[in-house]
Formats: sequence, structure tokens, C-alpha cells
Amino acid sequence: MNTRNPRNGQKDYFFSAVTADELSTLCQQLKVAQISWNENGLAARIEALQEWKKLIEDEKPALLKALQNDTGRSWETKLEIDLFFSSIDRWCKQAEDFFYPTSKKKTQIPFIQLQQDWVPFALVGVISPWNFPLLLSLIDTIPALLTGCSVIVKPSEVTPRFIEVMNRSIAKVPELRKVLRYIAGDGTTGSALIGEVDLVCFTGSTETGRKVNAAAAARMIPVFLELGGKDPAIVLSSADLDVAAASICWGGTANAGQSCLSIERVYVHEVIAEEFITKLTHLVSQLRLNDKKIDEGEIGPIIFEKQVQIINEQLEDALKKGAKIIAGGQCCELINGGYYCHPTILINVNHTMKIMQDETFAPILPIMTFDNKEEAIRLANDSIYGLSGAVFAGSTEEAIEVGSQITGGAISINDAALTAIMHEGEKASFKLSGIGGTRMGAAAIKRFLRQKVYIINESKEPSPWTTQQQRKD
Amino acid sequence: MNTRNPRNGQKDYFFSAVTADELSTLCQQLKVAQISWNENGLAARIEALQEWKKLIEDEKPALLKALQNDTGRSWETKLEIDLFFSSIDRWCKQAEDFFYPTSKKKTQIPFIQLQQDWVPFALVGVISPWNFPLLLSLIDTIPALLTGCSVIVKPSEVTPRFIEVMNRSIAKVPELRKVLRYIAGDGTTGSALIGEVDLVCFTGSTETGRKVNAAAAARMIPVFLELGGKDPAIVLSSADLDVAAASICWGGTANAGQSCLSIERVYVHEVIAEEFITKLTHLVSQLRLNDKKIDEGEIGPIIFEKQVQIINEQLEDALKKGAKIIAGGQCCELINGGYYCHPTILINVNHTMKIMQDETFAPILPIMTFDNKEEAIRLANDSIYGLSGAVFAGSTEEAIEVGSQITGGAISINDAALTAIMHEGEKASFKLSGIGGTRMGAAAIKRFLRQKVYIINESKEPSPWTTQQQRKD
Repeated sequence: MNTRNPRNGQKDYFFSAVTADELSTLCQQLKVAQISWNENGLAARIEALQEWKKLIEDEKPALLKALQNDTGRSWETKLEIDLFFSSIDRWCKQAEDFFYPTSKKKTQIPFIQLQQDWVPFALVGVISPWNFPLLLSLIDTIPALLTGCSVIVKPSEVTPRFIEVMNRSIAKVPELRKVLRYIAGDGTTGSALIGEVDLVCFTGSTETGRKVNAAAAARMIPVFLELGGKDPAIVLSSADLDVAAASICWGGTANAGQSCLSIERVYVHEVIAEEFITKLTHLVSQLRLNDKKIDEGEIGPIIFEKQVQIINEQLEDALKKGAKIIAGGQCCELINGGYYCHPTILINVNHTMKIMQDETFAPILPIMTFDNKEEAIRLANDSIYGLSGAVFAGSTEEAIEVGSQITGGAISINDAALTAIMHEGEKASFKLSGIGGTRMGAAAIKRFLRQKVYIINESKEPSPWTTQQQRKD
Repeated sequence: MNTRNPRNGQKDYFFSAVTADELSTLCQQLKVAQISWNENGLAARIEALQEWKKLIEDEKPALLKALQNDTGRSWETKLEIDLFFSSIDRWCKQAEDFFYPTSKKKTQIPFIQLQQDWVPFALVGVISPWNFPLLLSLIDTIPALLTGCSVIVKPSEVTPRFIEVMNRSIAKVPELRKVLRYIAGDGTTGSALIGEVDLVCFTGSTETGRKVNAAAAARMIPVFLELGGKDPAIVLSSADLDVAAASICWGGTANAGQSCLSIERVYVHEVIAEEFITKLTHLVSQLRLNDKKIDEGEIGPIIFEKQVQIINEQLEDALKKGAKIIAGGQCCELINGGYYCHPTILINVNHTMKIMQDETFAPILPIMTFDNKEEAIRLANDSIYGLSGAVFAGSTEEAIEVGSQITGGAISINDAALTAIMHEGEKASFKLSGIGGTRMGAAAIKRFLRQKVYIINESKEPSPWTTQQQRKD
């Protein structure tokens, strides 16, 4: 298989997908190794992950280069690597807090006691996307490893270059190499992986998520899906417009809008709309493409070529239906083989337009005005998605009051897209944005464990109901 | 639709299944009512459930009669009604302990605070089985109601007689009638229900569970499945054989074996096998059918007619392959139109026989011997199921040491089938016995809630990274 470079369009990276037989053998080995990985306890697992963290320091330049070639961007890649490093420490601490010693507990029946236990799944499969290849391949992997599972990770075939760097660093940690492996492949490999694992975590599009869900259901294994979003931002009349404009500019254009939690719709109170739009336009117009030098300019190329057509279609549909561009361009631009989407602001938009309904995954901010809060909430909730959102108001209380009525798992208050930065809040995904418990915060660890209970008769006699049954009623 | 009476085989009960349109209208009403049910708070919900508990006292005779006609048994029906009453109080207390006031929490970033919130699903669908019609229709319903969901319940078409009693008592509680309804219907109605609800809880066979799982996956809604079992009991050489025999007799024959958590396989250490089998045979032979009077005799009829053929086939297969009957009969017996399975003990069995692999759902105890613990554990785990199990040993420690190696969510220690009695232990279902978190204990409440977080920037300034993006790196 070969892979396109998003900066120049050249197919400059070749790799072999793992075969079904290789995958099956590998999964068997990972399952066998999981037994002692689990039995050796949390301290040994933390030690292995910390050793990996040290060793991967040496690979930092190689990792940065591979991920830059995968994604064509620089700033977000450095952020990814930093967040990966800090996430190891965060999860280690959360796992330590979580694993308390089991103890017997009394019940209402005097001679019966309960002892709770936890059993990890043997092999967790992680299928991760191309928009944050490193971070999203590890967000489920690290807590799963700490709970005592083995993990097999299949990143997107769109961004496979970092896989060999990961496996090289993993191979240097004797305990970790037995229980963690990255594999290369496309959707076929992903399907085969679902056929082998005991639990599957998928991050990606809702369309593919539906397939993963059906495949996991057919195998009767649990599934955690983190899918698309169409996050709204609401700017109330009391909001600080400098804060709102700066936050929405960042939340809508970071990583060229290629995040599930990107702000993709803006609803502004009509009395402050003009001032807000002026401020936002000013900020957006300062953003530069990074087409000349990867380290210069904030907006990287569109990573996934097929996305270009979706973006162009949404823009065309909006313009045809009366939308007006006040910053940016009418479609993606081809520059030296790479596709770029200029940061774009649209006004005169409405919910009949695809750009207000479908996920765009580009630095495009369509803006609608509203004249009362109820209208803003109704518009924000008029979506098949329910991932997250943002509310700006003069006070935290006013913002939360509106945010509490928005269907979504994480609401940034007087800020935007904070789930990208802050990984401790526990959040579910609503509607078609996902299924399963939170994958952030300490509760995320529980996803990889099954509860088990020993119900103990300590009386040394048969329970009274065993003889009650044999009594005439 | 008409329904067979399990005691006399007569189709003596007629009911109309709800139509798809009626169901759709009802579900819309329940969803609308859920909003204030949730907003009114836990205290109001507890009050409504306690009011219902009082009112249903008047219906106790009608409920008992309906359930006796549904299931043809008496003792287990009284137990069901008692457990239903006590479960209301237990869940109310657990819900009170669970719902703590939300408060802001600091993060590592000084100006960002987190505020956690919980959002119930609007409408929970419960599809429940015929073996414990009352209890298993309420095990998910009561915690779901307490968390602030509306609930629609479709019991099995095999045991529909108690539905009208339930709806009559629910109708007397003004707040409850808006958010809880039982409906009658078969698999078609069940499918339609999955098409309307926001979360589905299913208790029943693994075969139907697969269909429910696929249908829920197609709708991208969460699902909780509690399915079949083939629970093993292990009797170690150090065990108290009177305790083991009495517990296994009860655990294998209560409700005529028609429980998912029934003991369906017994593994006994060879040195004590003869003595154990003698004791068990003595107890089993004292059990009487209740064919003459519903209140006299411990073994009721086979409730679901189709199950009779499955039981007979398993017995025939076992006998053909060399099994020997030392108590009970070769097949179910037809008495005055009702089918009865005599409590049966089989020896000379092995894992090539269906009776050691497939769920039997009858008071049949096949016994194998072993000569070391590893062999016992291997045999216990040689199953597609992983619901629960039992271990008998001279000490709690020895029993738990073996129990910890058995794949299953609840292990009774020196007792059997304790999940029938003790609902506070938190347990998952392993393998094909189910999917989703525990439905027992306080953690069961969480299944009906989604976590939501407000991530609050309290600085009154844009976050530093919004400007960092626009700095040359």
C-alpha cells in the first residue's frame, strides 16, 4: 500500500498491511502475554510505561518527522507529542487512585459477605483516525494497558508513517513489547482486528462507526465509539467579544478544523453580531497557510484527500442557497500538490444548508444570528450530533444555564474546544457522536474492567432458603 | 394473541399486542413527560415509587394470581413479589447515595475549572423474559426511573397476564403513570420498541440477545444484555458435603431450573464424589412436582412449551452418549396438559454432550468428577457462557482461590446461585452471557446516565493557546 503526502500530493510512503494470519497469530500472543501483565500488578505496569516514556524521548525527532509527513503540519504535532507525554503521567496517577485493595463488605443478610473484584478484558483493539494520529491512537491504549489489558492499535492508513517509530520504541521495553503492538492496514485490517479482540475502541467518522458497531455486535463484544461532531458555539449578548472571537477563531481553525470537537457552527445574538463578526474576521484574516514552510503559518493542508470534495460541496451548496463569504475562499486551493482550505467565515447561512448539518472538518465558521436564548438553544440542538459545544456569556452562571440545555458531553464555558486541552472532565457522547462511557477522566479506566463479585456464605451451613423450598407452603 | 397456561396446556388468556402506531404515540408521550420527571428531582421520584409500592399492596392478590397463571408455580412467585417490594426501598436508598450535589473542581490549569453533571436517557426500553416475569421486568426499570428516565416495558408474550395488573396499579399514581408503561406483544413488538427508545435493556436467551444487539447497533443506541448461562458448581475435596448438596440441590432445581443462574453443571472431586452424590440424590428425590396443587410441591411445570423439546433432546443426546440417570426421568412428562421435568441427576457425562454445553433451563444436574483443581477449573471454563458459578471448599480462601479462576461475574462461595437472593454485589456478564455494565448494586444506576462536563475558563481572557497558535514557532 502507498500513502499520499498531504503537502505535495505525492505517494511517497509504502507499507505492507498485516495479513489476516499474521494478525491472528499476533493477537494470540498478546492474549497469552496479558495474563502475566495483569498478574504482575499495577506497579509493574506503571514502571513499564514510564520506561517507555523515557526511551521514546530518543525517538522524539523521528516521531515528529513521521507525524509531520503524515499530517503536513507542525504546531499541532508538537502539541500531540507533548500531550502524549503528559498523558502517561496523568493516567498512571488516575490508575493508582482507582485500584484500591478489595475488602469484604457486609450485607443485609448477616451470614453473607461480598468481596468485589475487577477483571480486565484480555485484548483491546484500538482503531484510530488520521486527524491526530498519535494522540487518538493512545487515548484508549494507555488506560487499557494500565488496567491490565493487552492492546493492538491500528491507525488510519492515511497516516501510517509514525507506526514504525512507535513499534521501534515499544520493542525496547521488554515488558511492554509483549502486550502492545501497532499494526498497519486499511478497513480490511480493521475488520479483521474486530474479529480477534475482546473489546473495540474506535475513533473516526460516524459512517465507519456504524460499521464497527455492527461488526462488534455480531461478535457480541463491547464497543466504544467516538465519532463525528458539529459543535455549536453560542455567543450571548452579555459575552466578552474579544474572548469569544479569540476562542472561536482557535476552536474553529486549529488543525485546519480537522477535529471532531472543532467549532463548526456559530450562533451570535443579533445585537452584538456585527461587532463580533468584525473581531472574528480580523483574527481569522491573520491566519496563514503553512504551504511554504511547515513551521510557518497556522493552517496546514487537508490531510485526507477525499475530504476536499466534501468541503467543496458544502461550500458550493451554501453559496448556492445564499450564503455570503466574508473571509476565505469558495473552495479548497491546490498548492504544489497539497490541498489547502483558507480559514473561512460565512454569513447568511441557515439550517437547510449542508454546512450547518454535516460535519465539515475544515477551518470554516458559518455564523447565524438569533434574538433570544431559546432560539439559540433550539438551533444548537438541531443536529444529528451531540459531541460538545461552547457558550459565551457575561457570567459563568448565565453560560452554564444555557449550556445545560445543549445536548452534548462537554460544554466549554467562555472558551472553546477545551476537551482538546483538558482531559480530566468525564464526558459521554450524545446522539450520533458516539456510544459508551467517558474516555476521559478516571472513570475511563473502568471501561476496560468487568466487575466480579464473590458472594460468600460464612455460616458453614446451607442457606435457610435451600430448606424453605422443601417445606409445604 | 392467545397464551397457553403451563399447568393445563389450555390457551386460556387472550390479549391484543400494541400496534406500531400506538407504540410510537405512547413513546412520544413518555419522552415528553420525562423532561419534568427528571427536572422534579430525586425526592419527587422516590415519593412516586413509594406511593406505588403502597398502592400495589391492594393488588397483591391479583398480581399473585396472574403470575401463578403465567408460570404455574407458587413459591417462586411469592419470592418474586417480596423481592420486588424490597427492591424499591433498596434502589431508593442507592439512588440517594449516588446523587450528590455537583461542585466545581480545580484542574492543573489554574484558570480552568470543571463542573460534572449527569444526563439521563429520555426513554429506556425494557424487554423481559418469562422465567421471572415480575422481577426481571423491574430489575432495570426501577433504577432507570429513579435516575430520571421514562420506561416502557415489554414482558414476554409467554407470561402476559400480570401486565394489566401492573398498568392498573401504575395508573393510580399520577406522577408515575406519565413515565412508566407496560405493553403486551411478541418479538415484532419488541423490534418496534427498539426502534423508539434511547437505550434498551434485554433479559433473555443469547439467541434473541444477538438480534437485540444488532437492532440496537443499527440504531446506534446503547444496549444492556443479560443472557444465557451454564453455571458450574465445583465441589473440592475439603468441602462440607451437606452444605454443597443442599446448596446445589436448591441452586439447580429452584424454579424448576428455569433461571439463567441455575446450576447446570457439577464438578466433584473424585474422592468425595460417591458421598456427595448420595447426599444430593437423597435431597433431590424428596422434591415433588406441584401438578396436583400449585402450593404443594417444589417443582412447577415447564413454562415455555418450546423448551420441552430442547430438554428432551439434551437428555436423549446424553443417554445415547453413555450418561446414566440416577434420579429423575428420561424426558419431560405430560400431566393433565402441563409438561413437567422431574428433578434429574446424571452421571457418566462429558463435554461432548449437549447437556454439558447448551443451556438446559430445567432441574437437571449432570455430575462429572475431577482429580485436581486445574482440571475442575478447565472444565468449568469450557463453555460459551460466563454468567456465574459456585465453589465449595473447606475454607472461604480456598474457594475464592478457585473461584478467581472461573470466568463469570458472580461466584457463590460455599453456597449456590446467590445472585438470586443478594442484589448488592456488582457483577458483569462474561462471554455470551451478556454485555454492558452491572445491573446490580449502586453502579447499575450509572448505566442510565451520561456524563456531561462544563469546562470553565474563569480568567475572563482568551486562553493562552488561542494566541500561541498565531505565533511563529
